[in-house]
Amino acid sequence: MMAADNTESGPLAGVKILDLTSMISGPVATMLLADQGADVIKIEPLSGDLVRAMGPNRGGETAGFISANRSKRSLALDLKNPKGLEVLKRLVETADVFVQNFRPGAIDRMGLGEPVLRAIREDLVYVSISGFGEAGPYAHKRVYDPVIQALSGLASIQADGETGRPKMIRTIIPDKTTALTAAQAITAALFARERQGIGQHIRLAMLDTMVAYLWPEGMTGMTFIGKEVNASRAQFAQDLVFATTDGFITAGAVSDIEWQGMCRALDKPDWLDDERFATPTGRIVNVAARLAMTAEVLATQSSEYWLERLDAEGVPCAPVLRREEVIEHQQVVINEILEEFEQPGGGRVRQPRPAARFSATPARIRRPAPALGQQSAIVLAENGFESDEIDALIESGVIRLPTSTSA
Amino acid sequence: MMAADNTESGPLAGVKILDLTSMISGPVATMLLADQGADVIKIEPLSGDLVRAMGPNRGGETAGFISANRSKRSLALDLKNPKGLEVLKRLVETADVFVQNFRPGAIDRMGLGEPVLRAIREDLVYVSISGFGEAGPYAHKRVYDPVIQALSGLASIQADGETGRPKMIRTIIPDKTTALTAAQAITAALFARERQGIGQHIRLAMLDTMVAYLWPEGMTGMTFIGKEVNASRAQFAQDLVFATTDGFITAGAVSDIEWQGMCRALDKPDWLDDERFATPTGRIVNVAARLAMTAEVLATQSSEYWLERLDAEGVPCAPVLRREEVIEHQQVVINEILEEFEQPGGGRVRQPRPAARFSATPARIRRPAPALGQQSAIVLAENGFESDEIDALIESGVIRLPTSTSA
Repeated sequence: MMAADNTESGPLAGVKILDLTSMISGPVATMLLADQGADVIKIEPLSGDLVRAMGPNRGGETAGFISANRSKRSLALDLKNPKGLEVLKRLVETADVFVQNFRPGAIDRMGLGEPVLRAIREDLVYVSISGFGEAGPYAHKRVYDPVIQALSGLASIQADGETGRPKMIRTIIPDKTTALTAAQAITAALFARERQGIGQHIRLAMLDTMVAYLWPEGMTGMTFIGKEVNASRAQFAQDLVFATTDGFITAGAVSDIEWQGMCRALDKPDWLDDERFATPTGRIVNVAARLAMTAEVLATQSSEYWLERLDAEGVPCAPVLRREEVIEHQQVVINEILEEFEQPGGGRVRQPRPAARFSATPARIRRPAPALGQQSAIVLAENGFESDEIDALIESGVIRLPTSTSA
Repeated sequence: MMAADNTESGPLAGVKILDLTSMISGPVATMLLADQGADVIKIEPLSGDLVRAMGPNRGGETAGFISANRSKRSLALDLKNPKGLEVLKRLVETADVFVQNFRPGAIDRMGLGEPVLRAIREDLVYVSISGFGEAGPYAHKRVYDPVIQALSGLASIQADGETGRPKMIRTIIPDKTTALTAAQAITAALFARERQGIGQHIRLAMLDTMVAYLWPEGMTGMTFIGKEVNASRAQFAQDLVFATTDGFITAGAVSDIEWQGMCRALDKPDWLDDERFATPTGRIVNVAARLAMTAEVLATQSSEYWLERLDAEGVPCAPVLRREEVIEHQQVVINEILEEFEQPGGGRVRQPRPAARFSATPARIRRPAPALGQQSAIVLAENGFESDEIDALIESGVIRLPTSTSA
């Protein structure tokens, strides 16, 4: 369960991150770092991150915002106001990391380019996340997740097996993979800085991220120069979803032992004599026939019936869970993957704990997602602003406090 | 292009990693760290990582192995031989990180559990990657990527929009996402160790990884306790793939401005008067009608024709690239995403550079994937083994050198 206090813990305890990112790729990256103990100060325009108003909500709090911004603190700051820029620069004096995901060039026009901030804090880790990089025909285009799915080959990999029509993945893989890649890169730069005393600029493009992510097995056919393989043939993954009388399961037999186990589980000992399936290679070549035969048998009984038999024979298998089943599945419960806490305004919410478990410096959900500007005043006070300065900034509308509290 | 030497560079320069992992989730994690400068010693059984023999190959080198093991060195070591265990323990004396992805309990039975290694190297970062965690009904099952897709809800998220039948993603998202999550966690533990002087045990399960990864927008409907949303309705992502006369494109209009741009690009100014589409909410509610009308128009001209018009009107859009088109796309070329180098035995190969670009400590592909046991002798020599010791280990079959060289 979430600890209610602000005690430092986690591998990144003591790291201060100024986070100007919005939407998903940046916020999910810094959320991971916040769960690991970094003090992530989310710097939002006075109108707030757009995600605050997108998707399902309760009491005005959206699930999407909570799930990408828990464990952070919020400073609502008008960066179009020169006084707002000055506030930010004072925060940079003691910051370790600065992250932004505006379109290339925008941050320089705002007056917060790398050279400006480095003059204030020499060993700052300055991070720029973009859709397509900083040059080239796409550099200045708006990026949406499907655009990266299209350009990176992901939509092509997901092409329908029969018609060849490309398909989008129905979850935003490029955004979230960029978040993980950014979090790792930031952490690596913090390590280098700790050891060598140097700051630097990390540049990360979603397009580059996805090509690297897909490559290890998604692009095997493009690896040998001069021996490129027709891409549709180069994709191994089969759709191993099988309908039963009451749902869907997955089951796969790769090794000889697993194949023999499957034939026994399906009560089809005669398949063991079928020469087409006698070797792993044979089972790959004759995959269509094999899967069709398997599907026909599995359709005759319930999921529970087959999972028990397959399991007893050592065949990797699982039910295909609907999302409402995932959260109640015994393995998810035993792993204590999900935590619950009170999100002010939004009521009781469910979140997954950070996946990696650290024995000495545990990562954990540190606090609910912040209200817009919830820590505006305290963050400034921590950074040496006097009460009258803070009052003046509030009165002139440079910073904003939550509507219902005095922070 | 890849530097041929072993010069230390990268944010993780100076870090020594003993990598006992095989297949994908572990090796892709340590490859990222190797590209960032860590000395990753891949410790393989005398028969080698199974991936050396899986999938397309040239000259016996497989694309899958190269793409998950470049930048590493290989030590072929028989850990079933007590002398092999002694060799490994001597390497642990100077190691920073130890990573393994055997099934839970196996590493302890091998005599290499955490307490054993920590007695040798107190501040070791010890990493255990598993499919399902260490307890519960799935803990001791074999894990395949589709099993995690099924259990985590990913296959359900990808369900066919019309039939509701779950679908697998045709690339191994759980394996590769676990790799990124592991790489970040290892890097965070190295940071904590550098700052606080402590080692620890990181445990990471693929199932936990995927629930956390999917959650921010894939599980929005499960976030508010007591107000769970029917999962199929909670999924926003539409399949934004449109057929043209000569291929497929994606295009999306979220904001009012983008919608107006799309109506102009499609030469359908009358759509602007259609009340169903007058607001963002209206366009979401009436998405089926809107996409059908859009598809009908886009089907009448070529991809190039539409992309030019959409782009001119500021509508986010892109061609849906086949994999062989990805590697030649102008943005991929300008970003210098792909490198080429000589893989001994396999000829000239193509690989994506590490996605994150570090200005001060650049990550880069350091060397080709190693032959099995290519650095067996040199790694031992670097760790204080005398020539006669190494010769004896070779003669007794405890370590192995590549068949065609003397390392």
